[in-house]
Amino acid sequence: MSKIRIGIVGYGNLGKGAEKALAQLDDMELVAVFSRRQLDHSLYQPLAGIAEWKDKIDVLVLCGGSATDLPEQGPKLAALFNTVDSFDTHARIPEYYEQVNAAATGTIAVISTGWDPGLFSLTRVLSESILPQGESYTFWGRGVSQGHSDALRRIAGVKDARQYTIPSETALQRVRNGENPQLTTREKHTRECFVVTEDGADKQKIEQEIVNMPHYFADYDTKVLFISQEELNRDHAALPHGGFVLRSGQTGDNNHLVEFSLQLDSNPEFTSNVLIAYARAAYRLHQKGENGARTVFDIPIGLLSPRTAEELRRDAL
Amino acid sequence: MSKIRIGIVGYGNLGKGAEKALAQLDDMELVAVFSRRQLDHSLYQPLAGIAEWKDKIDVLVLCGGSATDLPEQGPKLAALFNTVDSFDTHARIPEYYEQVNAAATGTIAVISTGWDPGLFSLTRVLSESILPQGESYTFWGRGVSQGHSDALRRIAGVKDARQYTIPSETALQRVRNGENPQLTTREKHTRECFVVTEDGADKQKIEQEIVNMPHYFADYDTKVLFISQEELNRDHAALPHGGFVLRSGQTGDNNHLVEFSLQLDSNPEFTSNVLIAYARAAYRLHQKGENGARTVFDIPIGLLSPRTAEELRRDAL
Repeated sequence: MSKIRIGIVGYGNLGKGAEKALAQLDDMELVAVFSRRQLDHSLYQPLAGIAEWKDKIDVLVLCGGSATDLPEQGPKLAALFNTVDSFDTHARIPEYYEQVNAAATGTIAVISTGWDPGLFSLTRVLSESILPQGESYTFWGRGVSQGHSDALRRIAGVKDARQYTIPSETALQRVRNGENPQLTTREKHTRECFVVTEDGADKQKIEQEIVNMPHYFADYDTKVLFISQEELNRDHAALPHGGFVLRSGQTGDNNHLVEFSLQLDSNPEFTSNVLIAYARAAYRLHQKGENGARTVFDIPIGLLSPRTAEELRRDAL
Repeated sequence: MSKIRIGIVGYGNLGKGAEKALAQLDDMELVAVFSRRQLDHSLYQPLAGIAEWKDKIDVLVLCGGSATDLPEQGPKLAALFNTVDSFDTHARIPEYYEQVNAAATGTIAVISTGWDPGLFSLTRVLSESILPQGESYTFWGRGVSQGHSDALRRIAGVKDARQYTIPSETALQRVRNGENPQLTTREKHTRECFVVTEDGADKQKIEQEIVNMPHYFADYDTKVLFISQEELNRDHAALPHGGFVLRSGQTGDNNHLVEFSLQLDSNPEFTSNVLIAYARAAYRLHQKGENGARTVFDIPIGLLSPRTAEELRRDAL
């Protein structure tokens, strides 16, 4: 059997994770890594020449960011290749879907996959469909929020920083108890900031600026800890993340709890693994003659597995 | 919009649960309840006359048992109606699939759905596809096993009984810690039996017979508690169940844990709710002109939801 030929676009954390994911698989192979900038990689290809690879790649895994890379690359590349991406700007998903769908006239383009959006979205829809009466909850963490870490680093006097989002055990427990609580932002998560300051910076002023920062920290109980660059590099280099999706539902007097959780040592590596599984599905849908944009809601789970439908019925049902 | 017309076949715990599930929904309606025996129900119809309902029902929800009802009814009814069932004799699923698939030439027949097989199967395939290197675990309970309760009731001198399957907290914790342990049957679950004896029965003999019963109890640490019929009726009338599916996987040095769990006050009512959600999907697949047997692996999650694909992308992704 010939392998599914994969191209990676963008070689940051996600692109590197995709390469690692492919190394574990027998049915897929990496054939090219595309980047705007020159890479020291045996499979490097300049992004500008990607159109020439049209017949040499089965699925492109788009590993760029949602802010600027994907809005431009997604529609353009979906016109030429089957694609998979992790577009996660929630408010702009409908618009992005339309653009990619219009471009993917002869290809399959899986958009907005990963774990949230992605697996968490799947769980929400699955559990709400099964338990229409009830409440849904999503908690994130314990994990590093890159957006919040960036916000810390933009403060004057801050040299480097890492922010952890922490779900409240009390709130989680109340949901698990079937209380169906109404939870405020403050009750759901706390935030922990590890901050390295410039020499002579006013730590008290920085702390106040952090805990009062609108949107990012003001609505949360936030803990600020000042540490050295050495400590940050040693203890906070990893990018763990995860979270919980819960649905607490009722059928008459009976309560039911559905809970899905992830505990990830590396957020980007797990996300890449999700992208690669959906790349397999994209290839198969295209083989069946389908085209257009797809989300996790449109794709049967069996298509993610290297096993055949027959094997899955026999061994996994 | 006209509602999806549902017929229920079999009016035990599952059939009653399906009726309760439908009462929560706006897009589906119960139009008939079929049974072999006369029912005191306004929608009762004799099972023998079901063929006459061919054009008056969109999906039949088969609520019979896997031992004798479904092997006979599944293929026969799939020839006439879209169907959904909870066939759960694991070893016979491939054969059952073939029979139902051969019959469903103009209909959609969703087989073997519920929570295990069903949601647990989905989670296993999803998480193994994403984390190909790792170990999978399924734990059941705390919940009532009907098969084990029946086994207890077959013992001479036992008047009534209820058996709970209990997952080991220690084993669960080891899996969550990323140890990827090899667990024996005894290490994974314990069993708790509440037994009502006939007057004058030899309780010590009964206890020995229970804990040494091959397949059912011999491989487990089993606790036997003798109680009165009143206590059994008062404290053990419900049918709670649930369980945990875990995948502990590795990407290089990084560990990732995927966990899905259910905590159900009523096993049959939750199962019915799953059947009803898949009935909606069966209807939609049939509307699209598809036919044949399907399992949870073949059906996009979006089709379970009453919401449109557009609404799901906008609100749930």
